[in-house]
Amino acid sequence: MQTIRVDTPSAKYDVMAGGGLIEALGPRIERVVGRLPRRVFVLTSAPIWALWSEAFLSSFAEPPITLFLEPGEAHKTLKSVERLLREMADAGGDRGSLLIAFGGGIVGDVGGFLAAIYMRGIPYIQVPTTFLAQVDSSVGGKVGVNLPEGKNLVGNFHHPRAVFADIGVLGTLPERELKAGLMESLKAGIIRDRALVRYMELQVDEVLGRDAKALEKVIAASIRMKADVVHRDEREGGLRMILNLGHTVGHALEQATGYRLLLHGEAVGWGMVAALHLACERGTISGKQFERLERLIHLYGPLPALKLRVPRVVAATGGDKKNVGGVRRFVLPVGIGDAGVVEDVTPAELEAAVGYMLEQAAERRD
Amino acid sequence: MQTIRVDTPSAKYDVMAGGGLIEALGPRIERVVGRLPRRVFVLTSAPIWALWSEAFLSSFAEPPITLFLEPGEAHKTLKSVERLLREMADAGGDRGSLLIAFGGGIVGDVGGFLAAIYMRGIPYIQVPTTFLAQVDSSVGGKVGVNLPEGKNLVGNFHHPRAVFADIGVLGTLPERELKAGLMESLKAGIIRDRALVRYMELQVDEVLGRDAKALEKVIAASIRMKADVVHRDEREGGLRMILNLGHTVGHALEQATGYRLLLHGEAVGWGMVAALHLACERGTISGKQFERLERLIHLYGPLPALKLRVPRVVAATGGDKKNVGGVRRFVLPVGIGDAGVVEDVTPAELEAAVGYMLEQAAERRD
Repeated sequence: MQTIRVDTPSAKYDVMAGGGLIEALGPRIERVVGRLPRRVFVLTSAPIWALWSEAFLSSFAEPPITLFLEPGEAHKTLKSVERLLREMADAGGDRGSLLIAFGGGIVGDVGGFLAAIYMRGIPYIQVPTTFLAQVDSSVGGKVGVNLPEGKNLVGNFHHPRAVFADIGVLGTLPERELKAGLMESLKAGIIRDRALVRYMELQVDEVLGRDAKALEKVIAASIRMKADVVHRDEREGGLRMILNLGHTVGHALEQATGYRLLLHGEAVGWGMVAALHLACERGTISGKQFERLERLIHLYGPLPALKLRVPRVVAATGGDKKNVGGVRRFVLPVGIGDAGVVEDVTPAELEAAVGYMLEQAAERRD
Repeated sequence: MQTIRVDTPSAKYDVMAGGGLIEALGPRIERVVGRLPRRVFVLTSAPIWALWSEAFLSSFAEPPITLFLEPGEAHKTLKSVERLLREMADAGGDRGSLLIAFGGGIVGDVGGFLAAIYMRGIPYIQVPTTFLAQVDSSVGGKVGVNLPEGKNLVGNFHHPRAVFADIGVLGTLPERELKAGLMESLKAGIIRDRALVRYMELQVDEVLGRDAKALEKVIAASIRMKADVVHRDEREGGLRMILNLGHTVGHALEQATGYRLLLHGEAVGWGMVAALHLACERGTISGKQFERLERLIHLYGPLPALKLRVPRVVAATGGDKKNVGGVRRFVLPVGIGDAGVVEDVTPAELEAAVGYMLEQAAERRD
């Protein structure tokens, strides 16, 4: 097991990554928060609970009160939040209650948001069950839900008291979700950890074969990168924006495909291809680096084929949360292991990058 | 005009209390936040806007985007919040947008909550238009909405960038609302400002006659007390709880009467009578102090008559947000100008205090 410390002005907590964490969760949580309060809630989804409830419950003297969120982005809504808050109130939750978010990224985002706003804030624990949630969304305190107008338009910053990333639960994760999650690890390497890029190049088979040691290494490195960035810039004043490499175009692809065709990590994968192309055109990465990174993205693919027109995707980049006062912000890699945020990307540059990416995406067969 | 500084670990801002603030709001806000962003929203209610929109708009070069909340506690819901968040997204609000909450306590609570969760938090300004909102809810960063299960069960801590309490707008405030608001000023005096109690005893006619100087004095003193308490205890770890004098029983009365019969301040007024009675029985205030304070509460009344049975009210105190892990917390005055929180109030004591209060309340004619 590896322990990564997250240290921000508003919260300090540990992320534990390793095997066998679920089976000893009760005592592990007590080590963090002290004696468990009268009401402990666990927010989860039915498929996760069907697989893991026995292991989960085995270490709790009293079973937590179970709250269910239906799977899928379509349920990451204020309507779900209201129903769940009411269930918490009905069950006698008070300010001292604890919430455990046990599931993928959506469960984590919704669970964290419930904890952020129930009685103006209660403590919570993240127990992410997907690769993506383990390396990305469970760390950093960003929580929230979607509006029909766009993803994650509603939310808060609310850090968990601890994160338990159990590699064992990844054994039941569908192949496609693992690969999509690995896109965020690639992103972590590209923007800030050259050694992680190298490791992922050399250990493709071990990682995709879910070798425990390889997974722990990639997960811990990804979390360490994120913890470091969040430590330096908790509220996304500047540095934290680099975590959005591939996300401007990625979000646009998700929106243009109605959030149905692509997993988030897949959209980010294609978004990174566009960002790398733009960076290569600008010369912040070399042609050789571009080829190397593009190849690596596809090694952890294949990314799904896309049939979209350039103007549609470019238009969809307009609603990005990073845009303030109409300025379009864009994260560009600088070599391998560094990145910066630019505000002067021209429409022509964006069109060229999206055009290149969509050409690649049209040729794929999946 | 008086300026009161609020200084907490997470935010520092000024509360301006005085006349003529609305008419010069644009430049005053710019002095706080710098140049106004591309999207400025104002959340208000139709009755307030009908009276004050002209004065409000006179100092803005570009009129803010108006959002309306229907008046009344029944609209302080997540449903209203969702509709308003969507309107903000549709109007192109981004992370740099500013929200102005222009109305009574409900507008302030909902507006602050919108600002707390829109894109994970945007800045906002409080422009409270009722006495109660000016002295109480606009300061301290507590924002949120109700659930069917109870009041203010959902929310956040999100401080405004500034508060403008314009005494001029109180000219159109109904008599009953002014009197209800004054209960919170009495509370401020009882728990922490003996001089304010004395002033309110001596200047009843001036205050109720809305003499500008008297109102400014009472409002500024009330805000100063709250700012001081919030400074010492931002998140209600301990001291801030004393602000809840009269609120345990007050909330129970509101709940038992379906939130229709009593204004919040009126419920707090009756709740203070119960708390003072309990304090007198325990000897933390003398019989003479009890009589003096009870008389003072009724000078600023009359509080509405109530026909409720003791067990009903006592039962309704069980759901108070101050209760953690089943312990019933209660704020008791200690002399005049001090207060403490106790956890050992027995059911018999509570019944006796509620019983005394309901006796008085049954005898009232209104």
